[in-house]
Amino acid sequence: MLGLMQDWPLLVHKILDHAALYHGDREVVTRSVEGPIHRTNYREIRRRAARTASALEKIGVRFGDRVATLGSNTWRHLEAWYGIAGMGAVYHTLNPRLFPDQIVYIANHAEDRVLFFDPTFAALVSEIAPRLTTVKHFVALSGTGSAHVIAYEAFIANGDEDYSWKTFDEHTACGLCYTSGTTGIPKGVLYSHRSNVLHAFMASQPDAMALRNADTVMPVAPMYHANAWAIAFIAPMTGARLVMPGPKLDGASIYELLETERVTVTAAVPTVWLSLLHYLEETGKELPHLKRVLIGGSACPRAIIERFETRYDVDVVHAWGMTEMSPLGTLGSLTAAASELSREEQIAHKLKQGHPLFGVEMKIVDDSDRELPRNGEAFGRLKVRGPAVAKGYFRGEGQDAFDDSGWFDTGDVATLGADGYMTITDRAKDVIKSGGEWISSIEIENIAVGHNAVAEAAVIGIPHPKWDERPLLIVVLKPGQTITSAELLQYLEGKIAKWWMPDDAIFVNEIPHTATGKIQKTVLRERYGKRNPG
Amino acid sequence: MLGLMQDWPLLVHKILDHAALYHGDREVVTRSVEGPIHRTNYREIRRRAARTASALEKIGVRFGDRVATLGSNTWRHLEAWYGIAGMGAVYHTLNPRLFPDQIVYIANHAEDRVLFFDPTFAALVSEIAPRLTTVKHFVALSGTGSAHVIAYEAFIANGDEDYSWKTFDEHTACGLCYTSGTTGIPKGVLYSHRSNVLHAFMASQPDAMALRNADTVMPVAPMYHANAWAIAFIAPMTGARLVMPGPKLDGASIYELLETERVTVTAAVPTVWLSLLHYLEETGKELPHLKRVLIGGSACPRAIIERFETRYDVDVVHAWGMTEMSPLGTLGSLTAAASELSREEQIAHKLKQGHPLFGVEMKIVDDSDRELPRNGEAFGRLKVRGPAVAKGYFRGEGQDAFDDSGWFDTGDVATLGADGYMTITDRAKDVIKSGGEWISSIEIENIAVGHNAVAEAAVIGIPHPKWDERPLLIVVLKPGQTITSAELLQYLEGKIAKWWMPDDAIFVNEIPHTATGKIQKTVLRERYGKRNPG
Repeated sequence: MLGLMQDWPLLVHKILDHAALYHGDREVVTRSVEGPIHRTNYREIRRRAARTASALEKIGVRFGDRVATLGSNTWRHLEAWYGIAGMGAVYHTLNPRLFPDQIVYIANHAEDRVLFFDPTFAALVSEIAPRLTTVKHFVALSGTGSAHVIAYEAFIANGDEDYSWKTFDEHTACGLCYTSGTTGIPKGVLYSHRSNVLHAFMASQPDAMALRNADTVMPVAPMYHANAWAIAFIAPMTGARLVMPGPKLDGASIYELLETERVTVTAAVPTVWLSLLHYLEETGKELPHLKRVLIGGSACPRAIIERFETRYDVDVVHAWGMTEMSPLGTLGSLTAAASELSREEQIAHKLKQGHPLFGVEMKIVDDSDRELPRNGEAFGRLKVRGPAVAKGYFRGEGQDAFDDSGWFDTGDVATLGADGYMTITDRAKDVIKSGGEWISSIEIENIAVGHNAVAEAAVIGIPHPKWDERPLLIVVLKPGQTITSAELLQYLEGKIAKWWMPDDAIFVNEIPHTATGKIQKTVLRERYGKRNPG
Repeated sequence: MLGLMQDWPLLVHKILDHAALYHGDREVVTRSVEGPIHRTNYREIRRRAARTASALEKIGVRFGDRVATLGSNTWRHLEAWYGIAGMGAVYHTLNPRLFPDQIVYIANHAEDRVLFFDPTFAALVSEIAPRLTTVKHFVALSGTGSAHVIAYEAFIANGDEDYSWKTFDEHTACGLCYTSGTTGIPKGVLYSHRSNVLHAFMASQPDAMALRNADTVMPVAPMYHANAWAIAFIAPMTGARLVMPGPKLDGASIYELLETERVTVTAAVPTVWLSLLHYLEETGKELPHLKRVLIGGSACPRAIIERFETRYDVDVVHAWGMTEMSPLGTLGSLTAAASELSREEQIAHKLKQGHPLFGVEMKIVDDSDRELPRNGEAFGRLKVRGPAVAKGYFRGEGQDAFDDSGWFDTGDVATLGADGYMTITDRAKDVIKSGGEWISSIEIENIAVGHNAVAEAAVIGIPHPKWDERPLLIVVLKPGQTITSAELLQYLEGKIAKWWMPDDAIFVNEIPHTATGKIQKTVLRERYGKRNPG
């Protein structure tokens, strides 16, 4: 027997309708690509998004077509998303930090029909345009265009602000984002309207982002990187004031917006916060308005958490997720039990990847796909399931990541605590297998960076005739610091199991990173993996 | 084109799975029907709910069958709900405050197969049992049974705690609740798993109930009255500690739980809070743990809001909803704009019914179903739409409340402010039509109760040869107070439009109420509506 409740499909443009009607005056502030601060509100964003939808229809974009965006976080980018989604097309975010060849591959693979781009990326677009085989229209997210490029303002002037959103099945494709990863070809995650709306509900929970109408939120996490962590949906859902940082993400620029726009909640990867904290230390400035900072994208170093909480009285919420998860999976808000611990133990909990939201199922498995205990010690491959988790990639690629019961293999190795906290111990491909057991490279790295002389650390497995693999510690020292390998290894003693002790520690000038800031262990293994076993 | 996200149906028993796995130790405390405080946790509740599901299957209850509950808020009632839902049957909450004839009508109309009931209601159940034509099994929510009644503890001992929940379409019926209303036969609202889960997401938003894991929440609002305002779903969703008050809802009993269990959030109708405030005044006690109180079910008097906020420093969130809305529609959390107003203006905002949640569409219409402006002045029939709003009643009754576009006519008359706040001005059937214009009976009542001598006020329309209807003010005075009709009407002068001025004010000993505490204006119209026009 079915219930008798209304058939009201979960469509993302209904979020903007809600914002325009009930929070119409609430401001959306952008540091524009052109430089000046731009101010608008949800009512205007709604009107202009309707024009975008209408204008796209007029140039022949149809239901299900992909429309690419290559831009920083601005009000125009936001309008474009809702306009694209509201007519039943698919917003496809391109990551400008990728190599041009990758962008070309991805845009052609997605068969994008239109490309909206920031004027900042005009040279890049000129360079790749001849190789984009399906893009017919180039629109600069700007007031001015050029010979082959129409200005967004002219484009939407051609649209109708009384355009009526399309209504359709909530499982309709809404957004597309390719995961770059560190290996393999990029694969597309195809979000539905349903998954975006459900994920926004999940992510806005009081123990997650906890956005209120009275908040001012600044997503530094870019819209082209996993939906800006849902903030582009949650902020209008709750009517929070939205501050879009545009392209300038250096410490001084971020600080200026936090201060002048009185931002209360913000979110970004650790490197952004390192820049900000560095800027604050240099200038002696404070963070009087900021209440909460979400940190994810890669594991957050202890120093960042401690500095925010102890020096600046800002609550840090460590978050973990993946493009395939819309992206949020776990958040590090303290549970009731953890709230009662000592400050030091609380920091230890905040260093974990967090507690799962309702709507995210998790388990860890061994190499035979047998579920492992949730005791905080066993570690295994982390698998997830839920309404905002991908069930496959665009055009059927990468199906080996999905099993018959719908579980998605995250490629991470993790422990699950009896208290519900999840801790990533490694990427599955980076885990070190020694004597039939697994060694967590991340755990060793985290301890190594606790040494005063160490700026960054990476641990890789190198082949060993007897043990299969043994760990090697690779370190970048802080400027002016010196230390010997023996001293560093001695520092690890007692902090890790004896058989986890790296066979050696070597010092390098730089550790290579991917476009999204992750350590490229493949490169490290190529460079240093051929060393003789110790 | 469809998105490529997982098919993960929204099923309420997944909420309990989440709680058991990630918040398993979190306490569920009940003042039991038998008297003593009972303590369990979400892990145990999950195990016993699985037993309930299994035991129901063993006695032949099948997918879609209705299983009635007649009980106060206790851990056993909660287990019963999840057990019933988890096997694909429908929990049907019976309201013990209704007349026995109404309960019999409703249980037979729903064709309930099983009845779970509190031992408190044993006499009532004995009385009506012979007339319950479909109920085959009577289960006392207790450790002890009798000749014709099995004890719940014995019943679930027969079930399997390793029972696997059923998985099915999220539109499957989950719960059934009849609206009693003040007129007409009771009509059943049939919630789906989807609507219950979506409503829980909506209601748990930071500007709504804002429950966190660290909270301790006590739903005084009963499970038999519109899903206990979703708290039975939200608390396990977030792992909040849950305090169930059982059958004793007097001021002293409520206070005792608030104090000894350190409740941080609670929810109930105004009359409960009047009792509590009275108890606090008498005893001089304080509310050191309570942060937030939700008040709904009927309009909350100003005195309650002021008292909680000013004297006890408890944040009041006025809520409005209906059984047909799962039930929450609007909540009175202050918007950013309202937060900046003076204390007095904030109270005025808190007296409104609130701001709509995302997922609740609203409009007001005139008698010709034309939409009226959202200017805070125009008032018309309030219509709503959303994924947690009914699209019809059980067995097709009352279809005239639903229009072709899916809008449900709430039967309320309201204004919608440009700032998004909704204010109920009347029940549609109580609105007074005078000279072709509408007069809000509630607005006059609210002003009248502001007079020191007035305990309660009701305004009804009485027939008038020239004006069609004219308002009559009916008042219950506070003990020991005296005042003349002329003095009272003079008090209203300047506070309402001249043509709204009641033709007379009369004094009575008591104003009649329904089982759910609403003024029975039909009775007042019968008693006093035949008066000669003034």
